[in-house]
Amino acid sequence: MGKSERADVLQVDLQGLSYPIYFGHKLLQQPDLLNQYLSNRQILVVTNETVAPLYLSSFLNAIHSSQCHSVVLPDGESFKNQDSLDKIYQYLIDNTFHRDCLLVSLGGGVIGDLTGFAASCFQRGVDFIQIPTTLLAQVDASVGGKTAINFGQVKNMIGSFYQPKAVFIDFNVLNTLPQREFRAGLAEVIKSALIQDEPFYRWLCQNSHSLSDKYLHQMVKKCCAIKASIVEQDEKETGVRALLNLGHTFAHALEAVTHYRRWLHGEAVAIGLVCAALLSYQKQLLEGEEVLGVVSLLEQVGLPIQIPYDIDLQQIVALMNYDKKVMANKKRFILIQEIGVGVMVDDIMQEEIIGVLKACTNINDIKRRLR
Amino acid sequence: MGKSERADVLQVDLQGLSYPIYFGHKLLQQPDLLNQYLSNRQILVVTNETVAPLYLSSFLNAIHSSQCHSVVLPDGESFKNQDSLDKIYQYLIDNTFHRDCLLVSLGGGVIGDLTGFAASCFQRGVDFIQIPTTLLAQVDASVGGKTAINFGQVKNMIGSFYQPKAVFIDFNVLNTLPQREFRAGLAEVIKSALIQDEPFYRWLCQNSHSLSDKYLHQMVKKCCAIKASIVEQDEKETGVRALLNLGHTFAHALEAVTHYRRWLHGEAVAIGLVCAALLSYQKQLLEGEEVLGVVSLLEQVGLPIQIPYDIDLQQIVALMNYDKKVMANKKRFILIQEIGVGVMVDDIMQEEIIGVLKACTNINDIKRRLR
Repeated sequence: MGKSERADVLQVDLQGLSYPIYFGHKLLQQPDLLNQYLSNRQILVVTNETVAPLYLSSFLNAIHSSQCHSVVLPDGESFKNQDSLDKIYQYLIDNTFHRDCLLVSLGGGVIGDLTGFAASCFQRGVDFIQIPTTLLAQVDASVGGKTAINFGQVKNMIGSFYQPKAVFIDFNVLNTLPQREFRAGLAEVIKSALIQDEPFYRWLCQNSHSLSDKYLHQMVKKCCAIKASIVEQDEKETGVRALLNLGHTFAHALEAVTHYRRWLHGEAVAIGLVCAALLSYQKQLLEGEEVLGVVSLLEQVGLPIQIPYDIDLQQIVALMNYDKKVMANKKRFILIQEIGVGVMVDDIMQEEIIGVLKACTNINDIKRRLR
Repeated sequence: MGKSERADVLQVDLQGLSYPIYFGHKLLQQPDLLNQYLSNRQILVVTNETVAPLYLSSFLNAIHSSQCHSVVLPDGESFKNQDSLDKIYQYLIDNTFHRDCLLVSLGGGVIGDLTGFAASCFQRGVDFIQIPTTLLAQVDASVGGKTAINFGQVKNMIGSFYQPKAVFIDFNVLNTLPQREFRAGLAEVIKSALIQDEPFYRWLCQNSHSLSDKYLHQMVKKCCAIKASIVEQDEKETGVRALLNLGHTFAHALEAVTHYRRWLHGEAVAIGLVCAALLSYQKQLLEGEEVLGVVSLLEQVGLPIQIPYDIDLQQIVALMNYDKKVMANKKRFILIQEIGVGVMVDDIMQEEIIGVLKACTNINDIKRRLR
């Protein structure tokens, strides 16, 4: 294997659907590591207009495959839709791709979700591998095989559970990631700690200024390990996997109401985490002091923590009804029972949600009340 | 269970994805049998403009559910596309269907494939049950969980493997099925016999005039059992399941080139079976006499056996390149090794295919040559 032995590996254990995640520097320049998956088959790399100029040609050079094609989509959550999917399908059909082909996602969460969904549906399922190029995609989308597109205003409504054959996490690609995108990824990091791992949460609080350099590798791998341990218990989200949605019911509605344009997903998750922490406080699970700690950590890493005044809270509540965790009309929320322990709660009243949303429009007032 | 005990059951055994197929008369009027799957949840019945006036209201009456909705699509293979899928998704979203809902397909293969695919993608997968109302859907689409839509001219290019929770085969619904549709279903019956069960094939030859009445139940159940035994070995079609595609590479191209308007799927399969039998003869597998027997059986039950002169054979060959069985550019065909034994053959030359297609434009000449 040569150079590839330097890569650090985490195995996601899902019986017949198990796959490795490789972590390391300059993985995209390690042909031996890549070619065990890529050699001698039709390959379609799906990427976007931001990532393509940075990494597409070096990737193509590394793998020297004569059968490697690429589709370059526009960048952004608003393109995570059927139109983009149709472009991928059309390319595959126009170029007579067969069932033994391989799709490669080279990009962030949007590209990963689109490519994975296309791979799951094209000819009823072809192989794919993921090369996540954002922190958020590395720590979150790379584990667990959730794929999806948005349908109209409704986020991730159409999709599948479909596992990749391998994931390559190359830390070097984060060098070109805008600061804002990096911070957005930290929201999912903090979420993972909050639902599952108190020591990791305390460690994040202590090291919040060194997460982009000194502790990057350690942090990313820890997040993948947390998520893998949850997904291994519950691939199809019939139980414990729902904990990973902490803050997301709020976040998805915030994103939808602003047409996926105002916030990055991780930014909306950050606000959602504040809402979830507050709701946990109101349900007498979390101490006020801990709520303030969560707000403070999010603030330190530069994430938004407040719902702006111009957001229509009634519309947010209406959009929450589309949440995939709603069962038989019961509103179901993930809350924080204590730091490091997520919990699913069924009996949340509409009034409680509105109360929390209102409170989150004035974070200074929260700080005063809880101090 | 009351009346429902009269239903005959075949269990399709797919580990965690096993499900029962119920066979019987007037199943749609047996609330006990249906309600074990339907009670107390959001239900969307997907059907078409032909089936709805015949069976939708009696179905809705039988189940008396207050949460049962329906979507009625136009009838026909040309509507097995993304537009129809979007109509189903839009209805589910507009009516706030949750992840614990159930979709019911009430119709033929098109409705079954569309509904199954919608169920597999909506919220990354919800439950569905199938009530096939054509012979073809009863003997073929009801077993094995293949779902799909067509993409442009290319048949079944986008889809999934997704198993229903149950299938209800009610023989009474065939009373309203047009003769032409019934005959089309017989093509898949004959195919099942040819690849897997010689005694069943001989039985079909002997009883070809009583298949729509006296022997209907026996024939349908036998086909489901044959298909179940194959699917149980190979759910995702990595091996033996491909045998079920006997005649289909030809048939799909014939359907595509005529925009799914000239033949019913089963009619195209019938012509495809003649092509496959001839190709098997040319590869020195099948005796000439047996080829004539297959042609004769198809003719006796009233199915087409000849490619009309106006069909562009070069275009047929080009469309075959999209076939899902093509791997690494090799043309792969299912042939008949002997009656009752299907076989996959890799080394078919383009010239051999063109030769067979040409021969199939003049069936009288074939009869002369092989007699």
